[in-house]
Amino acid sequence: MTFKASVLTLYPEMFPGALGVSLAGRALEAGTWSLEAVQIRDFATDRHRTVDDTPAGGGAGMVMRADVLARAIDHASPEGDARPRLLMSPRGKPLTQARVRELAVGPGAVILCGRFEGVDQRLIEARGLEEVSVGDFILSGGEPAALVLLDAVVRLLPGVMGNAESGEEESFENGLLEHPHYTRPQEFEGRPIPDVLTSGNHKKIVEWRRAQSEALTKERRPDLLAAGFQPLAK
Amino acid sequence: MTFKASVLTLYPEMFPGALGVSLAGRALEAGTWSLEAVQIRDFATDRHRTVDDTPAGGGAGMVMRADVLARAIDHASPEGDARPRLLMSPRGKPLTQARVRELAVGPGAVILCGRFEGVDQRLIEARGLEEVSVGDFILSGGEPAALVLLDAVVRLLPGVMGNAESGEEESFENGLLEHPHYTRPQEFEGRPIPDVLTSGNHKKIVEWRRAQSEALTKERRPDLLAAGFQPLAK
Repeated sequence: MTFKASVLTLYPEMFPGALGVSLAGRALEAGTWSLEAVQIRDFATDRHRTVDDTPAGGGAGMVMRADVLARAIDHASPEGDARPRLLMSPRGKPLTQARVRELAVGPGAVILCGRFEGVDQRLIEARGLEEVSVGDFILSGGEPAALVLLDAVVRLLPGVMGNAESGEEESFENGLLEHPHYTRPQEFEGRPIPDVLTSGNHKKIVEWRRAQSEALTKERRPDLLAAGFQPLAK
Repeated sequence: MTFKASVLTLYPEMFPGALGVSLAGRALEAGTWSLEAVQIRDFATDRHRTVDDTPAGGGAGMVMRADVLARAIDHASPEGDARPRLLMSPRGKPLTQARVRELAVGPGAVILCGRFEGVDQRLIEARGLEEVSVGDFILSGGEPAALVLLDAVVRLLPGVMGNAESGEEESFENGLLEHPHYTRPQEFEGRPIPDVLTSGNHKKIVEWRRAQSEALTKERRPDLLAAGFQPLAK
């Protein structure tokens, strides 16, 4: 089954962009997923193709119009479309690897990329948009966030990852940050690979990596530990 | 002063990508910032141009070699380069708008995009890399994260944002999620714009927006409130 992504944007030329290269690009060519970039402006009705207007109540910036966006969404995602409708927005729920996994086993996603000050709230409610944030920072629009979300999802689609990217023991998959990695050369600028890793003692290596992961998570992301993440069964 | 970005990657063709369009693209053409994409593979020394090797201690995936990456970094960022050196990594400190602001007033950034299982730890230590995460999910590589980081930074460079994107009252800038937005038409599918916004009473509008922001933040992101964020003076 093909994962079908429809991205609604004022800048369709941003897609596939980075998603047309490497893992995601090869999967796109192979038909593992499809990507449609819909120009929101095509659903404006005036001769200036206006998609935004000044905010009710005043204030800086412009707001994307509910009526124009509704026509674009209804075109890309007619009634009966089972795909979730996402709005990339810093107001949204932070994207997690768990949500990425859910999306990757689904039929696809309809992704609205906000611009300017934001999107008319009535559109969000009337079309049941799920607001998704990729982090606590502000982007020029939802497009870079959509690229990130799709990259995270596409790599999990069946057949996309090879051995080099296999992702069995990765950050967040077990609720901890990943342990440090080392590879040849044995010594780099006077720094050796830690002895335990070249000891051949598999049990000690597993213990060392686990202890490193826990220490790193405690130092950098105590919030993950506080969230009571449970390791996945392997 | 030009903000100078150097991105070290196995996929230089991913850049400028979305950053070549819209706000960031115009600023790139105007010389407000510059972008250099450095092919890491050019710094390999064997005839296969190898950049990775198997992990010391065993395990899935491949690790990027410290020696090859060191040569790439030393080329892109010789001694005396004042730019911070970032490594896009899910193990990193989560990117915040505060860090974005700091970067935007600096001379630029050297950004290493990790791939595969990760980067040899000794390289991170020897070159003082700051590990930066754009969220609790796994990407195919650091490139989409670098696009996001640069987009966030570039929009803050002087002269980049116009009125439509002015960003005065945005999520995170005051430690709260942004209030809902509305614009014409007055009624959309039976849903009117909230009366208060068309009342002309500026004080009530400010109060309503603040209350909406606080309620939304409490509902979706109690962690922001718990972090004791203080509103910025305006």
